[in-house]
Formats: sequence, structure tokens, C-alpha cells
Amino acid sequence: MRVLGVDPGLTRCGVGVVEGVPGRPCTLVAYYVVYTDPEDDLPLRLLHLDRSLTDLVAEHRPDAVAVERVFSQHNVRTVMGTAQASGIAVLAGARAGLPVTTYTPSEVKAAVTGSGQADKAQMTAMVTRLLRLAEPPRPADAADALALAICHVWRGGTRSKLAAAAQRARRGGAR
Amino acid sequence: MRVLGVDPGLTRCGVGVVEGVPGRPCTLVAYYVVYTDPEDDLPLRLLHLDRSLTDLVAEHRPDAVAVERVFSQHNVRTVMGTAQASGIAVLAGARAGLPVTTYTPSEVKAAVTGSGQADKAQMTAMVTRLLRLAEPPRPADAADALALAICHVWRGGTRSKLAAAAQRARRGGAR
Repeated sequence: MRVLGVDPGLTRCGVGVVEGVPGRPCTLVAYYVVYTDPEDDLPLRLLHLDRSLTDLVAEHRPDAVAVERVFSQHNVRTVMGTAQASGIAVLAGARAGLPVTTYTPSEVKAAVTGSGQADKAQMTAMVTRLLRLAEPPRPADAADALALAICHVWRGGTRSKLAAAAQRARRGGAR
Repeated sequence: MRVLGVDPGLTRCGVGVVEGVPGRPCTLVAYYVVYTDPEDDLPLRLLHLDRSLTDLVAEHRPDAVAVERVFSQHNVRTVMGTAQASGIAVLAGARAGLPVTTYTPSEVKAAVTGSGQADKAQMTAMVTRLLRLAEPPRPADAADALALAICHVWRGGTRSKLAAAAQRARRGGAR
């Protein structure tokens, strides 16, 4: 399966695309960082992010999208922008008709390094090794996005399948 | 000018449309509350919100969109959903090519009641009076959205015009 991972941010939004199957090494397809200018108005920034993510989804035709879940414990100064960017990322996947799953940072760390406490350097090193890259992906936002995509491949999209089944069951009962 | 105001929320999102000119009473065009089911997956909820707001913008063809600015001091339990909903609302206006302005709750209160400290009941009473409605708009999310739209009409879209001019000047200098 091909997965597009998004590490949401308003100023820098990491995007990583990998291919693979659960339990085997993934292959790098591509990675990007979408930048928006902090001096621009919010509507322009969100529009640029929406268009960039929508274009990347159309270009790479992933089977699923994985987005990092944002918590309000994050950096208070940037958390609102990060939350808005994550909403745009989830929407871009949903508008393309793809299953979108969100993962907490510790879920991603645990899946990729074996420890939910891994730091940024350990994560980048592990992503570099897992994808057999000659150099670490830069900047770190791209490495985080690749880690999200790897995490989703290895978990086999289980959560989104379970959620979809539960939703179908609920809808069936309610309508 | 016709303005579509949005009081963003993931579970309940207020939308109010008014028409008017600065310094004169506004006229109610319509108001709505878009609901999404808290038991549904986030992608489905954001998709429903995006489609509903995009449809309402297309239906009412406003000259501008006004969205309440969200702060991280809000209710921590719901702030991430509110921030994501506000991102979707700003994007819906921007995708339609409209100027989108955000206002803080106190800016709206000050514009509509004369006091930045007004409570919800005072706001609803004032919106009812200003729009000469027979009954207060229900639920309160709709009244807040109408207040945002009135606030933008009365401020004559000044802020968005200034911001657009500043942005043009910056772009002209940079490119």
C-alpha cells in the first residue's frame, strides 16, 4: 500500500510518501515540505496549504493518508495554526475519498523506533535507516511525515478499517 | 454589502448572513447551524462541515466572510476541534475567492453591543434588536454568527482592505 503522511504545520508542513506492506521495509516515494509565509494573511496561507496537499494527493494517488494528531499541550503560540493545518490536511485526504487516520506522536515513535519516548534525532536516524536513504531527510518535518506514513503501513491501516466498520454498523442501525 | 459570518465549532457551527452598509441597521438574510456527529470520524465531520459551508457560500454569494478568531485559552477539551473548524471556514471563503476577515470575540462584542465584556444573553438580545427580529435566533451559535457578520458590515471591511493593500505592497516589493 502507498501512504501519504502529513506532519501538520502552518509555516512548515511535512509530507512523506512511502510504499510497503506490514512487517517489511518500506520504500521511499517522495517527501516535501510545504511552506507558507507567516507574513501572509491566514486565508492565503490555508489556501496555499490546501492546494499543495490536494495536488500532492492527486499526484501520488496514495491508498491512505496519515496525519499527526495535534494536542492542546503543544506550543501554545503555534498550536492554533497547527490545528488549522491539521484540519486542512485531514480534509484534503477526505475530499479525495481516501481513508484518513490520525496518530499521536507517541504512537508514531513507538511504531518506528520501538519507544514512545524517542527524540527527534532518534526518529530521523530510524527513518533514514528504515528507508535505506543515503542521507537523513531534511528538514525534520519531512522525516516526521515519513515516520507517520511508515507507522500507518506497519499498522496495516487496521485502525481506519475498524473505524470504518464501526461507522457502517452505526449508520446501518441508525438509518 | 452581504456578509456571511461563521462562529466555528466542530459539533455546532453557526452561520449567519446579513446585508447592510456601515452605520445603518443590517437586514437578516438567513441563519443556520451546521451540526456534525461527535461519534463520526474526524475526516467525515470535517468533510461535512466543508461541504455545508461551501454550499452556503455558493447559495448566498456574500461579498465577504467573517470568522471568529479562536484562542488557545478557550475550553481545552474542544479547542482543537474549534480550531480545525475555523480553518475549514476560512478556507471555504478563500476557495470561493472572497476576502475573509477574522475577529476576536471582544471585537465583535464591542462592535455590536458597545462593550467588549457583553455576555451571551446581551449579545443575543442586541442581535435580535439590531436585525428587528420577532424572536431571538436560536441556538446561540447562530446569534454569534450574525453578530460577526454585523460587526464586519459596520467596520466596512476596513481591516481586510488594509490587509490586502499591505499584502499587495509587500508582494510588489518582493517579486
